[in-house]
Amino acid sequence: MRICLVGLGAVGQGFLRAVQMKGEYLRERYGLDIRFTGVADSSGALHDPDGLDIRGILEHKKRAGLGSYPSGYEGMTGDELLDEAEYDCLVEATPTNIEDGEPGRSLVLKAMGEGKHVVTSNKGHLALFYSELMEAASEAGVEFMFEASVGGAMPIINLARETLASCTIESVIGILNGTTNFILSRMASEGSSYRQALIEAQELGIAETNPAQDVEGTDAACKAVIIANSILGRPCTLRDVRVEGITGITQGAIELAAQEGYLIKLIAEISGDRLEVGPRLVRMGSPYAVDGTLNMATLRTDLAGEVTAVGRGAGSLETASAMLTDTITIWRKSGGR
Amino acid sequence: MRICLVGLGAVGQGFLRAVQMKGEYLRERYGLDIRFTGVADSSGALHDPDGLDIRGILEHKKRAGLGSYPSGYEGMTGDELLDEAEYDCLVEATPTNIEDGEPGRSLVLKAMGEGKHVVTSNKGHLALFYSELMEAASEAGVEFMFEASVGGAMPIINLARETLASCTIESVIGILNGTTNFILSRMASEGSSYRQALIEAQELGIAETNPAQDVEGTDAACKAVIIANSILGRPCTLRDVRVEGITGITQGAIELAAQEGYLIKLIAEISGDRLEVGPRLVRMGSPYAVDGTLNMATLRTDLAGEVTAVGRGAGSLETASAMLTDTITIWRKSGGR
Repeated sequence: MRICLVGLGAVGQGFLRAVQMKGEYLRERYGLDIRFTGVADSSGALHDPDGLDIRGILEHKKRAGLGSYPSGYEGMTGDELLDEAEYDCLVEATPTNIEDGEPGRSLVLKAMGEGKHVVTSNKGHLALFYSELMEAASEAGVEFMFEASVGGAMPIINLARETLASCTIESVIGILNGTTNFILSRMASEGSSYRQALIEAQELGIAETNPAQDVEGTDAACKAVIIANSILGRPCTLRDVRVEGITGITQGAIELAAQEGYLIKLIAEISGDRLEVGPRLVRMGSPYAVDGTLNMATLRTDLAGEVTAVGRGAGSLETASAMLTDTITIWRKSGGR
Repeated sequence: MRICLVGLGAVGQGFLRAVQMKGEYLRERYGLDIRFTGVADSSGALHDPDGLDIRGILEHKKRAGLGSYPSGYEGMTGDELLDEAEYDCLVEATPTNIEDGEPGRSLVLKAMGEGKHVVTSNKGHLALFYSELMEAASEAGVEFMFEASVGGAMPIINLARETLASCTIESVIGILNGTTNFILSRMASEGSSYRQALIEAQELGIAETNPAQDVEGTDAACKAVIIANSILGRPCTLRDVRVEGITGITQGAIELAAQEGYLIKLIAEISGDRLEVGPRLVRMGSPYAVDGTLNMATLRTDLAGEVTAVGRGAGSLETASAMLTDTITIWRKSGGR
């Protein structure tokens, strides 16, 4: 299987590492031999129909962008790479852009238009243009998979569609953002203020320098939109979500909740008539009381009752694991074993 | 898809009800039209290549066995039914027998020998003869699926194999028996003695009149064996499990644990060098601290870190939902959409 990878941040690099680590496993277990025939980051790209040197790329990337790689084309964009590279599947790991979904949206549509399968970890295009992307995939007759876009290594999209295939999912309620869960957990366990906990998260690399997308609830809202469309079959976009972040949560509120046996969590609720993200009280000891950067989601179903999944919501290798599972699924569906 | 259903206890009846409830959903979503061409219980069997009347069977079963059904054959066994019925897939829901795995083992092998797919909820034959059954399925080139045999509606087998296909599973630690979890939860929350909590569980239909398989840990041990074989690829049988039940747990021990922030749970641990079921201390607030009849399992993986699934470990419709998902998977693999 020839893969073109666009986007070489933490998740893109994690995907390269994951394939490197699991090469033998993939060949033995699934008869799947992955060859990277094109890779691009924001500084340039490289391609080779015979397969690129993953180890060399990962080594180089520690110091500089692909534009300065010996056989690299400086300034070549992902879009240009798709014209040059020979590939079967695009793995798209460009940053989430909630203004217009670019460059992810154009890359995904271009690859589909050329009859290629797509795996993505990006939330922006999905949260803004879900229906358009699905129609393009369906018209082109290609697979389009996006488990990694919601909750990193927490299984949810494929869990609902495959592992719970007999069930109708009535609602999904969960913690879909690890950064805010870390901040709220620290405020509860250490008595920190919101400001202190945020700074700690930034120092640990859990929160970004500009934490707005996380702490204002936008990141969780994007994931809620993807869940609503893909699991509940409810057409919607980011504009339809009622969003409230955690910036207004005080230490006093958290203490008051604790006295009554509750925690404050940033909860997303997606059902037939609800699509919202906001702080809520959850009972200590309930499945919603998970700590740290963990994500969780409870799926209410008609046959199986409530099913809950818990996993790491972020992380380079963790998120890459979901993309690699999607890649394996595409390989199996297109005739691999 | 023509199904022959053998075993019409709570799970078998749940399967009939689930297919009845979801008939339109299955046709619309998967193009799958399920027809029951044979059904057997311990009193008799009936068959019809054009499909049996599910509603009539469920109504009759409330009052009496299939032997007395108008078009039924009194005394016809499941084995005899397989000779008579025309079917594509055997759904085997006979009771778990940990002595010799019968009648499940013979039924499953017979169906496979005739080139039929098999879905089972039974643990006995899997815990005793896992390798033999897998080889038979492989030789016959048929699908053999058993999600329902471990943890009812808690996804685990398919979760590990499909949803976490990119990962190597290093260990599984979990609560695999709902009855004992209910008893231990009541002892902790109500201060009941073991004896009181067991009687309450029996009155609620959660524990059987003879609760030995649950409270002595055998049921959880069977599930541990199935997980070891199917998820960790570790060949073993029931005889290889170190098992300790909960009959020796006192109210005093539970109180002592609680004072230190711990709960006592019946935990199964399956890894490369461990295969055991026994009471353990778990921290309050950890994923292992689930209440009531819930089951849970944490899978430690190489790429995705720890992934936890929580769901109802028993229940007629809940367990049937796992069998129906397996049926859908077989349908999709054999060319359905």
